[in-house]
Amino acid sequence: MFKIGIIGGTGYTGAELLRILANHPQAEVTIISSRAECGKSVAEIYPNLRGSYNLSFSVPTVDELALCDLVFFATPHGVAMNQAPELLARGVKVIDLGADFRIKDTDEWAKWYGMQHSALAEVSEAVYGLPEINREKIRQARLVANPGCYPTAAQLGLIPLITNNIIDPSDLIIDAKSGVSGAGRGANVPMLLCESSENFKSYGVAGHRHLPEIVQGLEQHTSAKIGLTFVPHLVPMIRGMQATMYGTILDKTVDIQALFEDYYKDEFFVDVMPEGSLPETRSVKGANFCRISVFRPQDGNKVVVLSVIDNLAKGASTQAIQNMNIMLGLEEALGLTALGMMP
Amino acid sequence: MFKIGIIGGTGYTGAELLRILANHPQAEVTIISSRAECGKSVAEIYPNLRGSYNLSFSVPTVDELALCDLVFFATPHGVAMNQAPELLARGVKVIDLGADFRIKDTDEWAKWYGMQHSALAEVSEAVYGLPEINREKIRQARLVANPGCYPTAAQLGLIPLITNNIIDPSDLIIDAKSGVSGAGRGANVPMLLCESSENFKSYGVAGHRHLPEIVQGLEQHTSAKIGLTFVPHLVPMIRGMQATMYGTILDKTVDIQALFEDYYKDEFFVDVMPEGSLPETRSVKGANFCRISVFRPQDGNKVVVLSVIDNLAKGASTQAIQNMNIMLGLEEALGLTALGMMP
Amino acid sequence: MFKIGIIGGTGYTGAELLRILANHPQAEVTIISSRAECGKSVAEIYPNLRGSYNLSFSVPTVDELALCDLVFFATPHGVAMNQAPELLARGVKVIDLGADFRIKDTDEWAKWYGMQHSALAEVSEAVYGLPEINREKIRQARLVANPGCYPTAAQLGLIPLITNNIIDPSDLIIDAKSGVSGAGRGANVPMLLCESSENFKSYGVAGHRHLPEIVQGLEQHTSAKIGLTFVPHLVPMIRGMQATMYGTILDKTVDIQALFEDYYKDEFFVDVMPEGSLPETRSVKGANFCRISVFRPQDGNKVVVLSVIDNLAKGASTQAIQNMNIMLGLEEALGLTALGMMP
Amino acid sequence: MFKIGIIGGTGYTGAELLRILANHPQAEVTIISSRAECGKSVAEIYPNLRGSYNLSFSVPTVDELALCDLVFFATPHGVAMNQAPELLARGVKVIDLGADFRIKDTDEWAKWYGMQHSALAEVSEAVYGLPEINREKIRQARLVANPGCYPTAAQLGLIPLITNNIIDPSDLIIDAKSGVSGAGRGANVPMLLCESSENFKSYGVAGHRHLPEIVQGLEQHTSAKIGLTFVPHLVPMIRGMQATMYGTILDKTVDIQALFEDYYKDEFFVDVMPEGSLPETRSVKGANFCRISVFRPQDGNKVVVLSVIDNLAKGASTQAIQNMNIMLGLEEALGLTALGMMP
Repeated sequence: MFKIGIIGGTGYTGAELLRILANHPQAEVTIISSRAECGKSVAEIYPNLRGSYNLSFSVPTVDELALCDLVFFATPHGVAMNQAPELLARGVKVIDLGADFRIKDTDEWAKWYGMQHSALAEVSEAVYGLPEINREKIRQARLVANPGCYPTAAQLGLIPLITNNIIDPSDLIIDAKSGVSGAGRGANVPMLLCESSENFKSYGVAGHRHLPEIVQGLEQHTSAKIGLTFVPHLVPMIRGMQATMYGTILDKTVDIQALFEDYYKDEFFVDVMPEGSLPETRSVKGANFCRISVFRPQDGNKVVVLSVIDNLAKGASTQAIQNMNIMLGLEEALGLTALGMMP
Repeated sequence: MFKIGIIGGTGYTGAELLRILANHPQAEVTIISSRAECGKSVAEIYPNLRGSYNLSFSVPTVDELALCDLVFFATPHGVAMNQAPELLARGVKVIDLGADFRIKDTDEWAKWYGMQHSALAEVSEAVYGLPEINREKIRQARLVANPGCYPTAAQLGLIPLITNNIIDPSDLIIDAKSGVSGAGRGANVPMLLCESSENFKSYGVAGHRHLPEIVQGLEQHTSAKIGLTFVPHLVPMIRGMQATMYGTILDKTVDIQALFEDYYKDEFFVDVMPEGSLPETRSVKGANFCRISVFRPQDGNKVVVLSVIDNLAKGASTQAIQNMNIMLGLEEALGLTALGMMP
Repeated sequence: MFKIGIIGGTGYTGAELLRILANHPQAEVTIISSRAECGKSVAEIYPNLRGSYNLSFSVPTVDELALCDLVFFATPHGVAMNQAPELLARGVKVIDLGADFRIKDTDEWAKWYGMQHSALAEVSEAVYGLPEINREKIRQARLVANPGCYPTAAQLGLIPLITNNIIDPSDLIIDAKSGVSGAGRGANVPMLLCESSENFKSYGVAGHRHLPEIVQGLEQHTSAKIGLTFVPHLVPMIRGMQATMYGTILDKTVDIQALFEDYYKDEFFVDVMPEGSLPETRSVKGANFCRISVFRPQDGNKVVVLSVIDNLAKGASTQAIQNMNIMLGLEEALGLTALGMMP
Repeated sequence: MFKIGIIGGTGYTGAELLRILANHPQAEVTIISSRAECGKSVAEIYPNLRGSYNLSFSVPTVDELALCDLVFFATPHGVAMNQAPELLARGVKVIDLGADFRIKDTDEWAKWYGMQHSALAEVSEAVYGLPEINREKIRQARLVANPGCYPTAAQLGLIPLITNNIIDPSDLIIDAKSGVSGAGRGANVPMLLCESSENFKSYGVAGHRHLPEIVQGLEQHTSAKIGLTFVPHLVPMIRGMQATMYGTILDKTVDIQALFEDYYKDEFFVDVMPEGSLPETRSVKGANFCRISVFRPQDGNKVVVLSVIDNLAKGASTQAIQNMNIMLGLEEALGLTALGMMP
């Protein structure tokens, strides 16, 4: 049984880690930190966990955390970069669900996240935790930067096209839609049910922090410059995310459906839907799957890729556990076989 | 008091006509037809109308309908083209909320709607009922084709750019999102709450009937060929629609915000939002307004236009009443000043 | 045109007052106060009001407020009792949408609201603003205590039975359900969409502030002691409220349906549904109506009364405007004829 | 590996059986029947199951079904009573998720279900599948009648009080609320998102089929006659059910909290919440748990019991699997340890 710590357990990604790990056969959460809820039991904050955890929130010392085999950071940006290095030095593996280690260019990171980076060596060392792309590197990693939700949906949908030079990398459009849980559990007015249900809107049109992460990810797969317009939207639902992506086709002779099916033929968690069918976010609700469909409307020069995930699952916590399984030498799908909850 | 008839009053657009006209100071609904509910009172089907209507659903004769000043068709396609000509011949003005008179090219219409057109002269005569674009023609019209919901949101957002040659008309992307009421009141499984709430998905990616309508509308404003990729999505909410539109800028020196503000400066029902602000569908819930924002992310070569309406209101029934007001010589906003319901 | 002031305009009841009064033919909002949003335009906080108000939030002086004919307090408890007396002294009529003047027994009030009352004379003078019960007193009133949402739904459903001695007043159960907007626009975690949608729960079971208000209201209609168990619940929707009420029948020979129909036969805003039919909250969404059904299941000794309102409308702001119309000598339904929004 | 058949696999309870059994370590679904979808793959109807089932819907013969160890009927009433006897005769264990074997009095059953019963001997033999009450009988049973959703929530909340003579059995009120999935996957207008979201209403007030089932269940625990008023309501959410129950206390000296804690102290799936805390339906979303709180408001003579379950889980399919585990001699919680999905 591996000992697992979670830093920042009161947000939604922390709660989702707890929910899934409660039934993981090889991992046991032994520490869960929260400054705000210190001393309260996990079950008090998350009644769905009653009976499964005797754990209380604490503010653990490094010595206590060092007893863990692996620690998740489910924290706002800026926390992991300060605390992870010490844990790594003590031999603890680290997965950061936040943004601290995702962007290799720390000047770019500083621009988007509004602070200087304090762990340059670790940024450099960190492996970007998209298992379908980086599995072998993750296996060797001490520190994994778990991808953002939009970047997960977007890269899984675009990389097969970019890497095979099917579309023009300088003319990409990602129109993305997320359930409200992506905004976290903070008490802010726009996320009240009365403000966000029965409503639809864009946000971050002028610039969203996941833009540079997606660009960096795509640049690994082409020598050309990435030109990307990225517009996220808020959907009145708790969980679920779709990226609708538009690319200009360079080679119209390619069978794009076959290309995707082949690209992901060995991937348990990426499901290329049959030609003509449409993915729905609910088909992955609470599950670690990504479902993808591809279209070429009116046989024109645009390809449309639809990629759906659960933003809290494959877009955050279950992907983090997938990375944990790989890093700990466990079967990759261990504890992650729950299916999307329909209805 | 003008006498108004409604053909097909049991669907959502019929219900919305009834709800708004109940408080219209110059129009009275005297006939409401329904084959399926014939004999039942309006209040039985729509309890929100209890106390406001003594009317029952009927299957009226042409003679009865001919007593009306104006008749709305709130029917599936194929109905109005068979019944409207006779009413026009009897001197009744007609507004079709369906698709029968929207597309001038009846071969194209036949292709998308799966039947031959039976009223070619009337198609030719019909005025496309987008008041902000066609106000003077509507004033003279006997027969108005009320626009589709997506085409309303899309054209109001793109015409200022197309008509001023700001963007490349051959490379347009409309990523559109609609509340579930757009699918109507038919009993079909995918529109059950259990199937469509807590869910997001695309539909009609391979081809949607509003595509040719949008293309036809835009072609009025440019000599170039329109190239359009149109992908609609279903949002888990009752009402509301957003079109997120992407165009490639031809002239980067233009102040797009000023251009929109100027284009719509005299339009009561089209609201260009202040620079940097984002429209929300709920701000127009139940109201006849369209709110529009424009962005040029990262000062790049793409313009992003966000256009929101209530699909049942400005996207259907209140726009039809706006057309009615114009056709009957009434003040255009009469009975239409209700504001969006927030929260 | 009467001049209207609103104290506390940024909450949901204030917003609803603004939305409805925008189309009122005899009332104009001239002052809207908010300490937190002072200086911001109304349209910035409530984009649905764009184009209808040029007003900005301010912190008005008493002299400024004294220019109003009538002032609404849409504030948390404790505010109106401090500010209303001065306005009354200056000849301004006052309607308090909060709880300050609802409970005649100020010791009881102090117990439930956690503070001492500071305006005992005004409590004594205040008329409880349930027009269907107190219309004539409201007509003479300078100060009206607008009822709470639960008390409105509950009293309209129970008074016909209590006043006619049909049920045992010592054995009443009110199982009430409210949309989330009843909790207001404050930023608190339990009202986030992610916390309150796809969820149902009771709250305030041990004791809710509307309990003494309901008891006081019912006691006006019987000499017996009221025994009431009141359990409110939170429904995952924005607007709407139902009180399901259970009473033990004393006289089984009475035709309860006829009794209700007769009791409310002259009331425009209270709709007794036909026997066997069920009210739905959406039938009054955004409207000032209350719909009531009565049942005697299995011809047993229990009567079940179902009473639905929109908690923000008849349960708060439109009822306040109904009171305003009466106090200002206007037609009672002026500006209040909007019908429930369905769908 | 036990071989499992499911009759009627296209409804929500069938889908939920499939979703949970996909990860059950000792049970494998080998047959899934549907007349309407015969020949289609399970994954086509339920995309969340893609990759987990190769099965297609079929219309199996009795010989084929007889190869199963256990067959679930997830069918409308009237189906199981015709088909189950033959399977039992072939040695197949049967669990009926429908209503055919729940009511021992077949005349009463005929009255509520509108048809004559055709399997009287089996009704007599059938064990009512509420494991917390009937565990030992279920262990011996060939045929289990899986309880209805409301009866599950209601009985788990009332039996501790009834069996200990704490409340008056002749004066019970159950005000129950269910998510929309309780209405099934049939295409009917009232269950459309546009009809049932942003809405709350009662239904079945005059008489609901679960009433006699609850009465029968409670009568097992008292010699007195049960007097019950039962009013169900529809909540605008997919899953979740709460029964709010009111009883008149006979003995005010009893510590009701302690009584419940003691009654369920050995039950893994029934969680008595700490005093003063409130259960939420989302805490059991997708999970086999029932959470219960008890209150005595204002120290009066009424006890209020709040009982929440997921209507499709503990209220149907996971309870059926709990019964299956018991009948097959497996650990009772096998495959059922998933926790409620929050958020």
